[in-house]
Amino acid sequence: LSRWGLSKEAAAASPALGDMAAATAPRLRVLVDMDGVLADFEGAVLRAFLARYPGEAHVELADRRGFSVLEQYRCLREDLEAKVANIYESPGFFLGLEPIPGAIEAMKEMIHMLDTDVFICTTPLLKYEHCILEKYHWVEKHLGPKFVERLILTRDKTVVSADLLFDDKETIQGAEPKPSWEHILFTCCHNKHLELQPPRRRLQSWADDWRGIVESKRRS
Amino acid sequence: LSRWGLSKEAAAASPALGDMAAATAPRLRVLVDMDGVLADFEGAVLRAFLARYPGEAHVELADRRGFSVLEQYRCLREDLEAKVANIYESPGFFLGLEPIPGAIEAMKEMIHMLDTDVFICTTPLLKYEHCILEKYHWVEKHLGPKFVERLILTRDKTVVSADLLFDDKETIQGAEPKPSWEHILFTCCHNKHLELQPPRRRLQSWADDWRGIVESKRRS
Repeated sequence: LSRWGLSKEAAAASPALGDMAAATAPRLRVLVDMDGVLADFEGAVLRAFLARYPGEAHVELADRRGFSVLEQYRCLREDLEAKVANIYESPGFFLGLEPIPGAIEAMKEMIHMLDTDVFICTTPLLKYEHCILEKYHWVEKHLGPKFVERLILTRDKTVVSADLLFDDKETIQGAEPKPSWEHILFTCCHNKHLELQPPRRRLQSWADDWRGIVESKRRS
Repeated sequence: LSRWGLSKEAAAASPALGDMAAATAPRLRVLVDMDGVLADFEGAVLRAFLARYPGEAHVELADRRGFSVLEQYRCLREDLEAKVANIYESPGFFLGLEPIPGAIEAMKEMIHMLDTDVFICTTPLLKYEHCILEKYHWVEKHLGPKFVERLILTRDKTVVSADLLFDDKETIQGAEPKPSWEHILFTCCHNKHLELQPPRRRLQSWADDWRGIVESKRRS
């Protein structure tokens, strides 16, 4: 028994967390990003922006380019940067994000796959006051408590080792020059126009063949 | 520029986070646990317990055994389990922890060491309501904002790759059967009686030779 304890559900759901000594088959480890992959950050920013600043210049989702929504609003007009930051730094913003279509179902299926460990790997805002706790609440609300134990908060994902990382950010860098995971670019409004250099791969949506990608790593 | 942005201070403090392409020298990565290593969890539990339940049966620090303070109080008398949990689940508990002697100074020195990346790697409570945000506040208060960006919250430390992990928990298990780090047992009241199997190593305190341990990994 550890100081914090592992819930019985979590131990049952994942033998790897329970009794490592018994593990024999090589297990696959999958990291899944939250914003843009599980939770609809971009849609919520736009909707909240239109509601709070009606008639103001804004960026339609079809016109989003680049990972940083902040940067694009700043390029549109300098004073819009603070307005858009204000949207996603507000209390309730992260908890209120809608799930990306199919994400919840995919995660619930993935966590039950044989010899597979799933973690949610997310980078909190620098202004972490509301964002952090709301990410935990969001996961508990939409995925349940066993996924809360699978949440990893880090501003550097390169130091987390895994076979796969599903993430909508085009380039993921950090302290580890050669991350162990293959980064699968999850298609989002801001990255859909990017042409990936082979052998980089995309997941177009959760309706796309995520199972095939997972199984391709198991064979490799 | 990323969606969340990297603070200029953090980018300057660590070239690895700024421009990986330029990195050539192999860098050393060190993970440091919070409770029992940076923050005096055990002392605070006892002090708060004595203050809230004066005259009640309790465990002196000299008598602490095993990682779980909850378990030891339960063994002492079953109803004490809820009382001690109540202590560390209370708002303000984690933010109020005193730094372990020498920890702040060691961290401030370590982050400036050449070719070294330091991360704080901590496991939040299952009852995360107060604990999580207070851990971020604690780091900001005692170590400053650049360390906030180096905070990794995970209930499984085996999936974080590094050369070293300083941690007071005797056995650290998870999804990765062969973690990349060497676990250095940081001496704490609950583990000081344990005899480690060679080649396992201890750090007796932050006055002990942590620099020597760091440099030993650089040579290996």
